[in-house]
Amino acid sequence: MIISMKLHSSKQEIDQVCQRILDYGYKIHQIQGEERVVIAAVGVGDVTPCLDSLESMPQVDKAVRISAPYKFVSKEFRKEKTRIAVGGFEVGGDEFIVMAGPCSVESEKQIMDSAEAVAGAGGQVLRGGAFKPRTSPYDFQGLEEEGLKLLRKAGDATGLAVITEVMSDSDVGLVAQYADILQIGARNMQNFALLKALGRAGRPVMLKRGLSGTIKELLMSAEYVVAHGNNDVMLCERGIRTFETVTRNTCDIVAVPVLQEMTHLPVVLDPSHATGKRSLIAPLARAGVAIGADSIIVETHPCPEKAWSDGAQSLDFAQFRKMMAELKPYIELWKEHRGVAVGV
Amino acid sequence: MIISMKLHSSKQEIDQVCQRILDYGYKIHQIQGEERVVIAAVGVGDVTPCLDSLESMPQVDKAVRISAPYKFVSKEFRKEKTRIAVGGFEVGGDEFIVMAGPCSVESEKQIMDSAEAVAGAGGQVLRGGAFKPRTSPYDFQGLEEEGLKLLRKAGDATGLAVITEVMSDSDVGLVAQYADILQIGARNMQNFALLKALGRAGRPVMLKRGLSGTIKELLMSAEYVVAHGNNDVMLCERGIRTFETVTRNTCDIVAVPVLQEMTHLPVVLDPSHATGKRSLIAPLARAGVAIGADSIIVETHPCPEKAWSDGAQSLDFAQFRKMMAELKPYIELWKEHRGVAVGV
Amino acid sequence: MIISMKLHSSKQEIDQVCQRILDYGYKIHQIQGEERVVIAAVGVGDVTPCLDSLESMPQVDKAVRISAPYKFVSKEFRKEKTRIAVGGFEVGGDEFIVMAGPCSVESEKQIMDSAEAVAGAGGQVLRGGAFKPRTSPYDFQGLEEEGLKLLRKAGDATGLAVITEVMSDSDVGLVAQYADILQIGARNMQNFALLKALGRAGRPVMLKRGLSGTIKELLMSAEYVVAHGNNDVMLCERGIRTFETVTRNTCDIVAVPVLQEMTHLPVVLDPSHATGKRSLIAPLARAGVAIGADSIIVETHPCPEKAWSDGAQSLDFAQFRKMMAELKPYIELWKEHRGVAVGV
Amino acid sequence: MIISMKLHSSKQEIDQVCQRILDYGYKIHQIQGEERVVIAAVGVGDVTPCLDSLESMPQVDKAVRISAPYKFVSKEFRKEKTRIAVGGFEVGGDEFIVMAGPCSVESEKQIMDSAEAVAGAGGQVLRGGAFKPRTSPYDFQGLEEEGLKLLRKAGDATGLAVITEVMSDSDVGLVAQYADILQIGARNMQNFALLKALGRAGRPVMLKRGLSGTIKELLMSAEYVVAHGNNDVMLCERGIRTFETVTRNTCDIVAVPVLQEMTHLPVVLDPSHATGKRSLIAPLARAGVAIGADSIIVETHPCPEKAWSDGAQSLDFAQFRKMMAELKPYIELWKEHRGVAVGV
Repeated sequence: MIISMKLHSSKQEIDQVCQRILDYGYKIHQIQGEERVVIAAVGVGDVTPCLDSLESMPQVDKAVRISAPYKFVSKEFRKEKTRIAVGGFEVGGDEFIVMAGPCSVESEKQIMDSAEAVAGAGGQVLRGGAFKPRTSPYDFQGLEEEGLKLLRKAGDATGLAVITEVMSDSDVGLVAQYADILQIGARNMQNFALLKALGRAGRPVMLKRGLSGTIKELLMSAEYVVAHGNNDVMLCERGIRTFETVTRNTCDIVAVPVLQEMTHLPVVLDPSHATGKRSLIAPLARAGVAIGADSIIVETHPCPEKAWSDGAQSLDFAQFRKMMAELKPYIELWKEHRGVAVGV
Repeated sequence: MIISMKLHSSKQEIDQVCQRILDYGYKIHQIQGEERVVIAAVGVGDVTPCLDSLESMPQVDKAVRISAPYKFVSKEFRKEKTRIAVGGFEVGGDEFIVMAGPCSVESEKQIMDSAEAVAGAGGQVLRGGAFKPRTSPYDFQGLEEEGLKLLRKAGDATGLAVITEVMSDSDVGLVAQYADILQIGARNMQNFALLKALGRAGRPVMLKRGLSGTIKELLMSAEYVVAHGNNDVMLCERGIRTFETVTRNTCDIVAVPVLQEMTHLPVVLDPSHATGKRSLIAPLARAGVAIGADSIIVETHPCPEKAWSDGAQSLDFAQFRKMMAELKPYIELWKEHRGVAVGV
Repeated sequence: MIISMKLHSSKQEIDQVCQRILDYGYKIHQIQGEERVVIAAVGVGDVTPCLDSLESMPQVDKAVRISAPYKFVSKEFRKEKTRIAVGGFEVGGDEFIVMAGPCSVESEKQIMDSAEAVAGAGGQVLRGGAFKPRTSPYDFQGLEEEGLKLLRKAGDATGLAVITEVMSDSDVGLVAQYADILQIGARNMQNFALLKALGRAGRPVMLKRGLSGTIKELLMSAEYVVAHGNNDVMLCERGIRTFETVTRNTCDIVAVPVLQEMTHLPVVLDPSHATGKRSLIAPLARAGVAIGADSIIVETHPCPEKAWSDGAQSLDFAQFRKMMAELKPYIELWKEHRGVAVGV
Repeated sequence: MIISMKLHSSKQEIDQVCQRILDYGYKIHQIQGEERVVIAAVGVGDVTPCLDSLESMPQVDKAVRISAPYKFVSKEFRKEKTRIAVGGFEVGGDEFIVMAGPCSVESEKQIMDSAEAVAGAGGQVLRGGAFKPRTSPYDFQGLEEEGLKLLRKAGDATGLAVITEVMSDSDVGLVAQYADILQIGARNMQNFALLKALGRAGRPVMLKRGLSGTIKELLMSAEYVVAHGNNDVMLCERGIRTFETVTRNTCDIVAVPVLQEMTHLPVVLDPSHATGKRSLIAPLARAGVAIGADSIIVETHPCPEKAWSDGAQSLDFAQFRKMMAELKPYIELWKEHRGVAVGV
């Protein structure tokens, strides 16, 4: 923690700041610059309370944190990538994982057809929403438990693992009965009651980055889940909100390698939400593989024009199969980059 | 709803789009422009499902909504301002309301002293957090029910109403037992499970705008609460997230008159969170009164440097009193603008 | 400058960084933290080149600047406010200055009528564009020198000073012949060729904040003008670009007091561009006075619906007079805050 | 153009709006919705002036443009991709083009070594700044004409074309004497005086997207250049400014396929500025090829740690060669997507 004093601070003011730092249990290094005094505070433990206090002191110009506020999720804590076992495969391992399926579970036939299409094209995980976060109270809100049952059934029938969203801490137990991976939506990235409940869910979690969530905040939210007992967290870049309105969101694709430098957790890319537009999904999926994501999650629907939600950003099955075929050589290159023995 | 077709659409493509609109129960007006065909769809009810479907059709260039997606909260639905009775006063009425208090309830003495300071300086509502949304799992998370009890006690002792945050749908019942106003934090603006529960809370709600929440989304979230049975919603501008980092957030102060043109609900300004810096609170509070907000909510603490959270953006009691004194003539002008008989 | 090393840096890596700092002429304080080494570099002069170099070194985790990169414009360099004399008044002095007029100079009658309306309602400066920055090459680009002549004539006839935009370094000399204040538009805030030319213009400059210009960048751009020889710079907050689209821009009103804490230069608020909507101008102008701006600049036009540009954000003359009348008591309060003897 | 009237507009108010539309030469279709009247205006030519006027009328709720405000640059105007011949190759053609070199031209040896490294690794264009846009007036501003001469010399010696930035309309002639491609920096995307001068430059132009430039504004700026006589414009995505600060900018990589859907102009990606960090350049370059950009522009320097600018985002020559080797199989896939006969 580095504290820079205001210009022309008196000795007494500097002493007050130093005393405060000592009160919090840190050691002090005082540096006399040409213009101002800078104080370095050294010690162990979370500096946030001390930092907050110092920023409240009028003689302090600014206080800067040196160490990251997260611990368990950082690469400095753990160097090897976390591999999350789901069904017969691993997210974060030697295989590029494709999760796909409709935005919402609408009917048995719809989700069963989707599961077959996903499995047939080589995907590993079936997505489908049973609890839907909708901006409008008048839009379709999901089939709830009935949807969970259908999703599970479709997964079991096709050998796919299933992922679905949970929106409230009170639903975690219910959803965990049916799903292999619990998805936390962008709007709940900082729903701390929910994050705590996930710590005890006994299921892997996929945490989506919020519309205005910084990369550090995303890591802090993951830290919540881990600190409450669940190590199996994957992070998902799904586009952030910016001034640009031509696409639904702005895909911060560089977040993928940035996260991989900062954390050992696997990183998933969602080209459907990131773009909001069908024609952009395949190009962005290719880029996602090329930049080294661990997985992608894509919306596909038997008939996007009749989807109850997100039709404009869903591929139909033929388009999904085409995308999967196109991705193949990129996934081969991905394996080479990972050092995975190819063709074995 | 206006649908503009892609250039060079065939008659058959146009017919398909028209048929889809008719299927959803709307009437059609087809307009032949110089370059392209534009179709107006006219009818009643929420157009979202139809709009989503049309956007999924490849021959459609874009589909634009004409009517707002919210209803009950709009000024077109109800012209007169909503006045929310809390204790002996109204938010949205003839009086400018000041809510103030510490970020977190820390101890009986701290909240009692705060209540006396707020009441003594002319405030009407005591704020204080018992459930705290904190970015880090290692930061103080609030005194929970014990905090609620202390807050209630302090309010009762000083004749102030109390406002406090609720973070999960499972806590709504508990918090509603103690609080006069339920505060929904920025990070929960689109926690739809929570919004639904608030509809049945039997208490007024103050809904804070999310860090990346648009004004329309804020209104949609308010619509959730109203549609689920609770008309007493106030909206709070507390700064949005932008590229600027000198202040904690960027205060979109113009949201105040914009909201007042769009909705009948009262609008509160939070100069503490909007700036994150003590010295900016009083100037922004003056601007908030001048621009016509219905209320402000401000953080004040017996000793900001020792606050367990948000010290840097809290006023001490002397600063709070000074701000209140400074606001007086602005509040007089505010009453004149409202057409309130002054001096009666 | 504070340099934090990567975890587990070797002694040799640390020595290389220290040597680099010494090469740039700074002194070193090395601090051994619990986890990592932090180095403070102390000395005089602009640290940017050294900072850039350090950030390029692989063993450096991050390098943080302590002192601001600007000098002449900072409050630490000069405590008293800069007062810029224009005609018979000062911007940044004891009087609240109102600049107003049409977006574009369109005709002699239009600008003359505007000048009379501005002067009649108590304004001090006439605005009017002769060179117009337009997003589309097909929109009206301004009357150029003919417009400058008309503007000057209208100013002289009514005793108003005149402000107008200059868009290129090659036009600075021409515009300076006619205008009392040279306006730099938001899109040219970092047109460095233009900024340099303004240093030698011999006229006060009003520098508008760019759509994505940070407060620090705005100050750096002002530093350009001052460093090239012209001290008379006023800064203008005119709204920034964010995700919100209900208003044309998002007014960062808190930039006004923030700038006044950081710099001695006067600060102007532009409620027309900040909102883009006529009905929001007067409320925001009131807030601008209340928060302590030195001046406002407002668009007014004889017939906004027939304006060649920016009609939607222009007041007609009756609306302008009404706003000016409304502002009066706020300006009285403004003078009290400034400590200006009122009524003398 | 679609005009939606305010609720409860009177017949007289509607007639006034219709008359205004007719005055501008458009035809009218009036549509009676359930709630409000909507008017479609049909005709040829730029609707901006009429739109501006309508938005100024108090009875109008909103006016929406249907046709794009640009023409020559749109895919509707011209279906085939523009191929820009530079030296012996084409940007926008069958070859993936790599532009590389140092941020600034610093010395003959530095630029000559860079040119050899770029040519040796298979690049086609040498970049190097002679006029540098620097945020601080105290930073290195470029070698100006001397730099241009050195750049030209290095290009000629190695058979590379050269690209360099021009910052003012008064420098266009000079820079065009030396450069094969004129680069317009992000901060000058809406320097309209400069854009007009480029129309007459007789050289291809690479236009960088502004930090807060929307995709539509980028196209409008390109339209400026084309409308003033120069068809050879390439567009460059180099990252936009968002709330995220971990990277220097946020790369909107999806802008690449979005632009390719909207315009026939070639699109270049700049992974150096988009990330600001050396380790992220190669991953993003791979993604850029995979998503289908026409070219990339990358910073490389003999010794990044000693670069006079942008060292942190420059590759050294070994890293550059490694990136070029890595890109090879991706470029093969790129050619397949383009339908270019591979291996011929």
